[in-house]
Amino acid sequence: MPRKKKTEVTGKLKIAMLGGLYEIGKNIAVIEYENEILVVDCGLGFPDDDMLGIDLVIPDVSYLVENQGKIKGIVLTHGHEDHIGALPYVLQQISPPVYGTPLTIGILEGKLEEHTYEIEPDLHVVRAGQKIKLGCFEVEFINVNHSIPDAVCLAIKTPLGMIIHSGDFKIDLTPVDSPMIDLPRIGELGNDGVLLLMCESTNAERPGYTPSERLVGASLDSIFFKNADKRISIATFSSNVHRVQQIINTSEKYGRKVIINGRSMQNIVSVATELGYMHAAEGTLIDITDIKKYNPEQLTIVCTGSQGEPMSSLYRMAFSDHSRIELSNNDVVVISANAIPGNEKLVNNIINELFRKGVNVIYDAIVSDVHVSGHACQEELKTMHALTKPKYFMPIHGEYKHLATHRNLALFLGEKPENIFLSETGRVLEIDSKGARFNGTVPSGKVLVDGYGVGDVGSIVLRDRRHLSLDGIIVVTAAVDASSGLLLSGPELFSRGFVYVREAEEMMDELRDMAAGIIEEYYDHNDTDFTTMKNRIKDDTAKYIAQKTKRKPMILPIIMEI
Amino acid sequence: MPRKKKTEVTGKLKIAMLGGLYEIGKNIAVIEYENEILVVDCGLGFPDDDMLGIDLVIPDVSYLVENQGKIKGIVLTHGHEDHIGALPYVLQQISPPVYGTPLTIGILEGKLEEHTYEIEPDLHVVRAGQKIKLGCFEVEFINVNHSIPDAVCLAIKTPLGMIIHSGDFKIDLTPVDSPMIDLPRIGELGNDGVLLLMCESTNAERPGYTPSERLVGASLDSIFFKNADKRISIATFSSNVHRVQQIINTSEKYGRKVIINGRSMQNIVSVATELGYMHAAEGTLIDITDIKKYNPEQLTIVCTGSQGEPMSSLYRMAFSDHSRIELSNNDVVVISANAIPGNEKLVNNIINELFRKGVNVIYDAIVSDVHVSGHACQEELKTMHALTKPKYFMPIHGEYKHLATHRNLALFLGEKPENIFLSETGRVLEIDSKGARFNGTVPSGKVLVDGYGVGDVGSIVLRDRRHLSLDGIIVVTAAVDASSGLLLSGPELFSRGFVYVREAEEMMDELRDMAAGIIEEYYDHNDTDFTTMKNRIKDDTAKYIAQKTKRKPMILPIIMEI
Repeated sequence: MPRKKKTEVTGKLKIAMLGGLYEIGKNIAVIEYENEILVVDCGLGFPDDDMLGIDLVIPDVSYLVENQGKIKGIVLTHGHEDHIGALPYVLQQISPPVYGTPLTIGILEGKLEEHTYEIEPDLHVVRAGQKIKLGCFEVEFINVNHSIPDAVCLAIKTPLGMIIHSGDFKIDLTPVDSPMIDLPRIGELGNDGVLLLMCESTNAERPGYTPSERLVGASLDSIFFKNADKRISIATFSSNVHRVQQIINTSEKYGRKVIINGRSMQNIVSVATELGYMHAAEGTLIDITDIKKYNPEQLTIVCTGSQGEPMSSLYRMAFSDHSRIELSNNDVVVISANAIPGNEKLVNNIINELFRKGVNVIYDAIVSDVHVSGHACQEELKTMHALTKPKYFMPIHGEYKHLATHRNLALFLGEKPENIFLSETGRVLEIDSKGARFNGTVPSGKVLVDGYGVGDVGSIVLRDRRHLSLDGIIVVTAAVDASSGLLLSGPELFSRGFVYVREAEEMMDELRDMAAGIIEEYYDHNDTDFTTMKNRIKDDTAKYIAQKTKRKPMILPIIMEI
Repeated sequence: MPRKKKTEVTGKLKIAMLGGLYEIGKNIAVIEYENEILVVDCGLGFPDDDMLGIDLVIPDVSYLVENQGKIKGIVLTHGHEDHIGALPYVLQQISPPVYGTPLTIGILEGKLEEHTYEIEPDLHVVRAGQKIKLGCFEVEFINVNHSIPDAVCLAIKTPLGMIIHSGDFKIDLTPVDSPMIDLPRIGELGNDGVLLLMCESTNAERPGYTPSERLVGASLDSIFFKNADKRISIATFSSNVHRVQQIINTSEKYGRKVIINGRSMQNIVSVATELGYMHAAEGTLIDITDIKKYNPEQLTIVCTGSQGEPMSSLYRMAFSDHSRIELSNNDVVVISANAIPGNEKLVNNIINELFRKGVNVIYDAIVSDVHVSGHACQEELKTMHALTKPKYFMPIHGEYKHLATHRNLALFLGEKPENIFLSETGRVLEIDSKGARFNGTVPSGKVLVDGYGVGDVGSIVLRDRRHLSLDGIIVVTAAVDASSGLLLSGPELFSRGFVYVREAEEMMDELRDMAAGIIEEYYDHNDTDFTTMKNRIKDDTAKYIAQKTKRKPMILPIIMEI
């Protein structure tokens, strides 16, 4: 008897990352089936070193704007900036429903309050373990461990099969105040068959396992024990609620009151406490205004500034700019964080300043285990692969080296090269009943946020800022009688960021004569056009300056014809 | 019978660092007794992140210029930039004799050739083990291990006692091609009595011992063994002659030819070979023009670019900008160096590009032991203290945290707090027969080199560059009839690095009207002065722009009266 033929699914799945590939941050994935779109996360990125003056970077979501009728929802994996931070901007352009766990939505609400919306954002709370139906997609939120509570990975059931999106995760066998990652459920899904694993790659270079958050608790205990006679200040990521909880626990054990200092730290503590993710005994948390009521050794200060951010709580403490906290050799400062690449020097400056104050500074170069990562190392990534046994695999969330190393791990596990899709931003992975392949692209890119301006700073503006930053600008001005060609005023030179003019008068005189000569020649002969004349001023002065100084200031000739 | 009274020394020793304290680099020490000055090293520093456009930093040596008649000599500990790199500039201001070991002087000669001197530099070669007399000072050059051959520490005999200046050092029990640090001689000096130890602090945070250079040789051997079928390129510090030697040795063992690529690498290899510090079998080193005569697996390329420097050999290889070397999945690239703080992102960019080319990249995150430090870790520093048993100690060469940690090590070893002098740049440590104390300062500071300009970029220019880099500039120009107050031309606005003007026409129109209004009001009422009027244009437009955009471009009003 012939077996009943399974209904063939004729549609196509399209998976495109609008960010999070070849970069750290700006994580956002688009999953599309026929006329329905599901978005996973919507994070911000940080500007590269050459993006001068830029505050932050968000993904170009023009593809979503064009197709907003198709979007069934945005599902969030956790409340970190690089996963939700672009939403305040993106929700001004599109307004699909947004789904996340309680803490994630709680943190998002705080961010949205700072902006205004024509259509009020439509936020929905989902708990780990729940499933929601969004068009043809069924999304299951599965508990994972990470450096923020309430993080989930997503099992996305599509007409073509199951997609597992890992979010950010680690496997913590002894997590603080939260259950261990739901490996049984992930394994169950693997047994049922996973079409595609999209898995984060942040720590793909690191062998072994990421240590448990509880290890930091043990280190803190030892620091508190050894420094019973001193005030202890601890800087960490404000979103690391478990870390703050451990600091509170240790403080309570050693009879200390806790001051939470720094705006973002206070915001998160208040959201987390309200939602039941953080708890302190009555009277443990005190207001900073009561700091003088206690002796230093009775106090713990939890503060922002672990990345050396200027104006953060720790920065102001280190540089004697804090209105209520003055550090001395009666203080211990613990930097319970790693420096994110690019922030090393900022953190280092703070450490040096703390040393100069005689503070006992405890940081990763001196004491290990004051911080652990929130991301899976190689053995944990392998565990995710081994449990999900995916047909196809796409490494996500990482620079190229992370994605490539993650691919190598998958190959080592026996996955076939043709089933691994190392994608790039905007590239479309197409999956149908016949197989999977890259096919085309969707619009994507980086939108730069500078002050209130979203996307108005482009490559020309950035190029000019870089040019200006290196050697400054010289403005060459003159007013000319258009009919007679007589110089009515100038040429005058104004320079900023080039050289202190009083010390370069001779050169400035030369440049002035040079410009005057070119202008006079232009009106005498009139055999060229105005723009060419201005370009000649630009080129000739630039050449002279380069010869004399080996510098290349921007030169802006402004010739007014009257 | 009364013992014969020792002649009392009535003079004072003065020790001042003109650099190398609270910073990495720019190492220079001044040792003065009565009317005689000895200078140790004269290095350059690298610009801080906020020194936009600056090429390098040299010490302010105005104290030496003022007292040049007293200077008996400049003695050099080794040939690294941070110890000799300022000499090309400083020798244009003063011209005392300079003493160093053969390789140090050889490298210095190469640097001096790029500059011109009124008085030809007076260079002298001294070998480790030798002593020279410079005025009242007798300087002994003692062999140490470091990441460049021919490094020495200095035993400086003064009328008040012996000063040991460690230079940069490590204790390498199995050095490559050079003798182990002369611990016996250092111990002998310690037994005779050391007045002051000035000891480097670079690795003072690191516990234990720095591994031997030979460890890298073993790693390289294993890399060559495993990659017999691929071309191997290795980027390292060009001055690390022992490293390059080990690469040559390993290449010879595995039957490979070696190409030296990158200008600074070629320069050092040629100096080191000429002076006998590097050796290769006949025919091992081949010219890059012969690259096509060999199969990839027959070749090793030693190249510059281990710090990610744009335009270095490795950078051009990674970004497909090298005229003769194209990388592919037949290549192995080893980054045999650590990223100097601040260079992490540059190095990372190269690593990502190499991965994208399919290159097998071997770097510290993936494989350990492809690089070892050249500086003493804590146990080695302790050895230096234990052998010299100094009466006084001054930690040098390091940021504040390094100096303070080094002080803590000395305290742990039983040195008395009152005998440890954690100094700062320009501060004078005075030692006489009665004791030691800080007393006064000498002029000191940072001189910024930008192109050909030495010291002409000061704080105002840097402040302007920072301002320009963040939000650009808007130039507001107008020409006015001085007698009638009629606007003859403008106001016109020119912006660079602010916003692409075509996209901000409305705002520009507003600003133009605002400026016109202020100018007209000025000429109508004439109740204020010209500068006040220009300042009003500046302030009012700035305020408007800040409200509209949250940005603060530089505003330069140029009003021409005709």
